[in-house]
Amino acid sequence: MQEDQRDPWLLTPGPLTTSELTKQAMLRDWGSRDATFIETNRRIQRRLLDLADATDSHVCVPVQGSGTFAVEATLGTLIGKTDKALVLINGAYGQRIARILDILGRRFETLESAENIPNDTAALAARLHRQPDITHVIAVHCETTSGILNPIPEIAGIVADAGRKLIIDAMSAFGALPLSASTIAFEAVIASSNKCLEGVPGLGFALIETNALQASRGNSPSLCLDLFDQWQTMKTSGQWRFTPPTHVIAALDAALEQLHQEGGPPARLRRYRNNCRVLVAGMRRLGFETLLPDHLQAPIIVTFRMPRTPEFCFEAFYAGLKHRGFVIYPGKLTVAESFRMGCIGHLGEQQIDGALAAVAATLNKLKVADSDPLPAPST
Amino acid sequence: MQEDQRDPWLLTPGPLTTSELTKQAMLRDWGSRDATFIETNRRIQRRLLDLADATDSHVCVPVQGSGTFAVEATLGTLIGKTDKALVLINGAYGQRIARILDILGRRFETLESAENIPNDTAALAARLHRQPDITHVIAVHCETTSGILNPIPEIAGIVADAGRKLIIDAMSAFGALPLSASTIAFEAVIASSNKCLEGVPGLGFALIETNALQASRGNSPSLCLDLFDQWQTMKTSGQWRFTPPTHVIAALDAALEQLHQEGGPPARLRRYRNNCRVLVAGMRRLGFETLLPDHLQAPIIVTFRMPRTPEFCFEAFYAGLKHRGFVIYPGKLTVAESFRMGCIGHLGEQQIDGALAAVAATLNKLKVADSDPLPAPST
Repeated sequence: MQEDQRDPWLLTPGPLTTSELTKQAMLRDWGSRDATFIETNRRIQRRLLDLADATDSHVCVPVQGSGTFAVEATLGTLIGKTDKALVLINGAYGQRIARILDILGRRFETLESAENIPNDTAALAARLHRQPDITHVIAVHCETTSGILNPIPEIAGIVADAGRKLIIDAMSAFGALPLSASTIAFEAVIASSNKCLEGVPGLGFALIETNALQASRGNSPSLCLDLFDQWQTMKTSGQWRFTPPTHVIAALDAALEQLHQEGGPPARLRRYRNNCRVLVAGMRRLGFETLLPDHLQAPIIVTFRMPRTPEFCFEAFYAGLKHRGFVIYPGKLTVAESFRMGCIGHLGEQQIDGALAAVAATLNKLKVADSDPLPAPST
Repeated sequence: MQEDQRDPWLLTPGPLTTSELTKQAMLRDWGSRDATFIETNRRIQRRLLDLADATDSHVCVPVQGSGTFAVEATLGTLIGKTDKALVLINGAYGQRIARILDILGRRFETLESAENIPNDTAALAARLHRQPDITHVIAVHCETTSGILNPIPEIAGIVADAGRKLIIDAMSAFGALPLSASTIAFEAVIASSNKCLEGVPGLGFALIETNALQASRGNSPSLCLDLFDQWQTMKTSGQWRFTPPTHVIAALDAALEQLHQEGGPPARLRRYRNNCRVLVAGMRRLGFETLLPDHLQAPIIVTFRMPRTPEFCFEAFYAGLKHRGFVIYPGKLTVAESFRMGCIGHLGEQQIDGALAAVAATLNKLKVADSDPLPAPST
């Protein structure tokens, strides 16, 4: 890798651009059984619980790997052999949850809507009423497939009213979008270090209701992904069962301090909302259409429809943007040709403006722009 | 954490002290689907296969998490429901392999020896002869429980002669102790980034015989830990299935370049052997006894028996060494009270000499030293 090149800004769903402070926290080596490191873990666990007002009701169980590792670990630990889950699906991450349950041999059903339509709360209420054997509902807070915001407060109310348990995959939402245990009843929330918390990848975690976790002994079909076992060990010794990703953890510790300094999730949400607003307005000015109407758009990642002009080649567009210092993300939709641009990570309006200028310059170069005047490129 | 404090040297089985170059490789952010990052992964996979002369016969499949994640992933992928494994056990890591197979519901037997005795090759040959239903033998190259070196070449010969498959947990050996596919027949070798390769923790991998992996579709009881599925995706797109630990991977890339610069595994083994020799000689001069005779000792980590003097308190000894800049490791033996000191990581004779001086100074302070003259502390 070229050490002398300024890194491109990552307008992706993660890994993201992180701050220098966060990366510099990785410039040290820790003994994983040493008191200093154990205290770092405890501080991280306290802060993650605090972010969701869940300190009194839940415990925080971290696990090595990507967010999907944390999802599989949580489902395998909490969904028992006699349980039955209902998975709310409107994108690839809901589909993935169903696939995990299938592989784990757990009983489940799905309730699907199109990728540009939020989870159907009326259908959820009817299904829970009709099927008393459903024990758990699993929802995705922000589906990064499209960038859509699902109605978690309404879903949580329906699930609680029906006396069932809710598990939320809040991977790309946690730390920015509001999620408080004091107003939303959840058995577990799952997230990872490298989305709105702005840490580096390699670590996931779940906030799990203490009683539910206590009752989950022996559920997991895995050693590594058994969060009951992980919790038991960490509770008593403060140590991880297996070598933790010490540098990733140190980076998360630094990132959480920066989240605190920024003003917590409300301040971070304001920054992301502004990033999203500026991005969407600028891209519309350049002729792009968003997949979603504004009221369904989470300020996390935005899906743009691929222009219908035959001259538009995504690979050339991607390369042009990367050349100008911005990495974007391919689409993941089944319903439409698209690409995505993220609003999260250590970036603000200045970087979004830079990205818009890069888009304009790239379009100019690719000669797909129409006759409207385009902003002059800044690079 | 105190940013102004020089970090202690980690004389542990990992996480280890890594070089500044390796840590500085984490000061950048990569897009996980970007061509630069994909090329980094391909380079790492090529180099790991090269280290074991396995390029023509095996593929390298990385997986997020600790070494144990890679062990569980490899066993779940390669040991089918109709297979039967024989696990050679002389320490906690062999026991853990048996526990994983038990949790995964795979058929297995064990062949145990005491923690200070190498795997019994005669008993292995007899067992394989007697039990044709055993399909796989699983061995631990260096058991870090004690630091013992198991006779992998002899084991591999017996397993091959009996027409069975060998899986080697080479976690704490790979990159230093010799292991070549040209002389040792193995179906899989499992290791991680943060032992003799001197990367940071958060990444494991397996080198797997291409034919065996090709035949393993559908074996894994996990999505995340399915190495067949991981391989299929990486083979076609070069991308990870789920967010990779980008910074950990960048550190491993840098660490592998440094291993190459040092002169490869033979040069690294020479440095570790010298570290081990100096450490053992010095500790013996200070009155400590090793668990193992020298011919069974791998130059990875050394187990010392706890002194029999009642004044010796391990916690105080540990704290005294940490205060002087060295972190050691508690024992893991069931047969004797002990502690461990590692010989691996980015350290050489100077650091081992420093550790010995710190041990002498700590003993002096704890007043457990006998009347023999002790080296003057250097700090």
